[in-house]
Amino acid sequence: MKRLVFVFAFFVGFTGTEVISGNPDSLVIGNFFSEALTHPVAYHNLGFLCNNFQGRLCGTLQAEKAVAWVYRMLKEMNPDTVYLQPLTVKRWERGEKEVARVKSSAVGKQVLNICALGSSIGTGSKGIEAEVVEVAGFEQLDDLGREGISGKIVFFNRCANPTWFYTFNAYAEVVALRARGALYAAKYGAIGVIVRSATLSHDDYPHTGIQHYADSVIRIPAVAVSTNGADSLSAWLKVDHRLRLFIRTTCMELSETGSFNVIAEIKGTVHPEKIIAFGGHIDAWDLGQGAHDDGAGVVQTMEVLRLFKQLQIKPANTLRLVVFMDEEYAQRGATAYASAVGIKNESHIAAIESDRGGFTPQGFSIDATDKQVDLIRRWQPLLEPYGYWSFAKGGSGVDIGPLKKYGFPLIALVTDSQRYFDYQHAGSDTFDKISPRELQLGSAGIASLVYLIDKYSNLLAP
Amino acid sequence: MKRLVFVFAFFVGFTGTEVISGNPDSLVIGNFFSEALTHPVAYHNLGFLCNNFQGRLCGTLQAEKAVAWVYRMLKEMNPDTVYLQPLTVKRWERGEKEVARVKSSAVGKQVLNICALGSSIGTGSKGIEAEVVEVAGFEQLDDLGREGISGKIVFFNRCANPTWFYTFNAYAEVVALRARGALYAAKYGAIGVIVRSATLSHDDYPHTGIQHYADSVIRIPAVAVSTNGADSLSAWLKVDHRLRLFIRTTCMELSETGSFNVIAEIKGTVHPEKIIAFGGHIDAWDLGQGAHDDGAGVVQTMEVLRLFKQLQIKPANTLRLVVFMDEEYAQRGATAYASAVGIKNESHIAAIESDRGGFTPQGFSIDATDKQVDLIRRWQPLLEPYGYWSFAKGGSGVDIGPLKKYGFPLIALVTDSQRYFDYQHAGSDTFDKISPRELQLGSAGIASLVYLIDKYSNLLAP
Repeated sequence: MKRLVFVFAFFVGFTGTEVISGNPDSLVIGNFFSEALTHPVAYHNLGFLCNNFQGRLCGTLQAEKAVAWVYRMLKEMNPDTVYLQPLTVKRWERGEKEVARVKSSAVGKQVLNICALGSSIGTGSKGIEAEVVEVAGFEQLDDLGREGISGKIVFFNRCANPTWFYTFNAYAEVVALRARGALYAAKYGAIGVIVRSATLSHDDYPHTGIQHYADSVIRIPAVAVSTNGADSLSAWLKVDHRLRLFIRTTCMELSETGSFNVIAEIKGTVHPEKIIAFGGHIDAWDLGQGAHDDGAGVVQTMEVLRLFKQLQIKPANTLRLVVFMDEEYAQRGATAYASAVGIKNESHIAAIESDRGGFTPQGFSIDATDKQVDLIRRWQPLLEPYGYWSFAKGGSGVDIGPLKKYGFPLIALVTDSQRYFDYQHAGSDTFDKISPRELQLGSAGIASLVYLIDKYSNLLAP
Repeated sequence: MKRLVFVFAFFVGFTGTEVISGNPDSLVIGNFFSEALTHPVAYHNLGFLCNNFQGRLCGTLQAEKAVAWVYRMLKEMNPDTVYLQPLTVKRWERGEKEVARVKSSAVGKQVLNICALGSSIGTGSKGIEAEVVEVAGFEQLDDLGREGISGKIVFFNRCANPTWFYTFNAYAEVVALRARGALYAAKYGAIGVIVRSATLSHDDYPHTGIQHYADSVIRIPAVAVSTNGADSLSAWLKVDHRLRLFIRTTCMELSETGSFNVIAEIKGTVHPEKIIAFGGHIDAWDLGQGAHDDGAGVVQTMEVLRLFKQLQIKPANTLRLVVFMDEEYAQRGATAYASAVGIKNESHIAAIESDRGGFTPQGFSIDATDKQVDLIRRWQPLLEPYGYWSFAKGGSGVDIGPLKKYGFPLIALVTDSQRYFDYQHAGSDTFDKISPRELQLGSAGIASLVYLIDKYSNLLAP
């Protein structure tokens, strides 16, 4: 009977804050936030992760140590299950510190802050040197053609558009130059590419990230240059368009190796076979500490389990934390998880991903049917007192994306995006950029959403 | 006729985003944000202000240099009027670096990170030394009475409550210990007070701020200790409750001196006699650079004038920037401004203050009649695309507060408060804590609100 009363309160409860303040769900959600803000366990966990397992790109010893640490921490939490889900990952090493030098009698000897892009081949120990052709996009390459490009280094210098409020939109407009620049330029005979970092900030950090080759096209070295460096190079080219750029990288891809997703569960008391999944990814690019991308998401979703345990809330359905391996390189963890769901014929109610940085949360982006989105949006007033103002239909995340074929709602934590790309994939993504309160508002918000999905799961059925 | 059409669009325009996207006000507001995010002039101004005029407490040479710089910058913007509004300010100097040492055979020699509180007398060059009595609030002092307190140093150690979402509420609960601790403890014969810094962060920065004496009560020295220091002192007292604390400060109040508010106006084309005022305060505590408190508010409101000039928007009413002097010490700038409004019988439509840090804006807090609040709230959907989700009735700000007697709406920019008290009044309030995008979202939001108030001013009449 009590449950029915609660459901009733839920349906009448979303017309005004007066009613919400007496809503039993409000009380539970308030407890999640109070506990998270009073005991920022996730913050201390993130500090340990960042300071001890820096450079945890998939396939590295650091990544394996991070997996072992996550497994150990979860075991200590004493949920019903903790296990490793095996998979294989690609392996790439950055090698020696990258070098880029400009040679020009007009502008003198100049150095640039660069980093190799993920999966890139190296230049060889002697490096490459050539004239530079600056372009803003692929169309210009088509215009220049082979005669304008062959034997040169292509400099992709397109600024991210600062007028987007949500910075992921600005990133989305330029990331293809990083991801496919080498592939595109090689078709016209370029010997290498140097790409403006995909960020809205103006600083000296080069931002790495994955780039892709194709079997049919010759592989050429690809590096990113800091935005300040890109501005300098562009200015120098205006002084001397025939300046020569020397680049040296010793990165390389190695043989594949074994790795793991880490999974932990609190079993459902009524429907243990039905799963609410949530997680982030443990791997991170090697230049920084992977604090915002995505140590934050890992510790926040670990914290969800702690909050349920601490508040002694026993879910009706199974709560499953998935700490994904390899979001950055080839998404093998996401593939392995989605594949296992199919093989085991597991039934999910929803999946939630946190991979947009540990910044102040703004809401959730929901990839689901209109009916499901409408239902979840009705919960927004319960979370608005904690700054969750945007519940919108939209994309979810890279690690839960492959689950889309199973047809249940996929949800992403949406955070304040203003500073995310200042740090993403750069040496500046370090623990000192994390605010314990901003991080924990995310932990408690995910816990609240998991709680609501669990309690009203019957309403979410397609 | 055009104006009527716009008003019509305004009234029908707030039911859904589809209509808003075709709303002419949306276009203007979009232009404000695009310009502000593309050309972060306010950010560069803030960098100059912070790096060149650090320690600009009212009455200091640095404050006067900052005033001169603001005046010069505004003149260069070429608005219709720029002038100085004279006033007198109190003057207080911190003196030599403060010293606090614990002496105890049980815990050894220990040092604490402290700073004198604003307006405090110094200890004299020989310092003071006494046993320490730790309390959480004034009630405990009443319980202990004169026999428990006389001749001792009172240690106010109340943690700010981390469970508040809006951190100003946590601050409000503890700030009285800083502001009136010495006054209260002196009544019971204490020889000094040391107060836990009014912040939710855990670090080594002591946070200063104003404290008040009364003529009828003996003045005793007052200092703040960092939160880490407070935790240590509390732990040491558990080991040795008779430990002795030595404090040395050489701060002192000096004679009053002259200073200024800086005022700049774009005259209204229709009602030049009606004023929409907006501003922040140029003075700042001396320990940091006054980046968030309140260099941010100054450069954001200077930016409002630039945005109107840049976009060539001619307001119907007069736009008036007020850069206030002395928010921190005795609010003489606020008093002088409010007084001048009365003497000149000036007519204001509204006043807006930015003094909650240059963080991502969340909305506006409106101190006005219910009818006026309702009207202003209807503009919220126009600003929601830029993250302005909260338009609520509430308090405004210290500098515009004295205008309340005139009965027009007072409005504060509300920002993400999670990190504000990490930095407020501490050495950590420096320019490197500023995000250009977060800052500029505030500039453009204030400009948008000013634009809407100007356009629909007739509707705001009481």
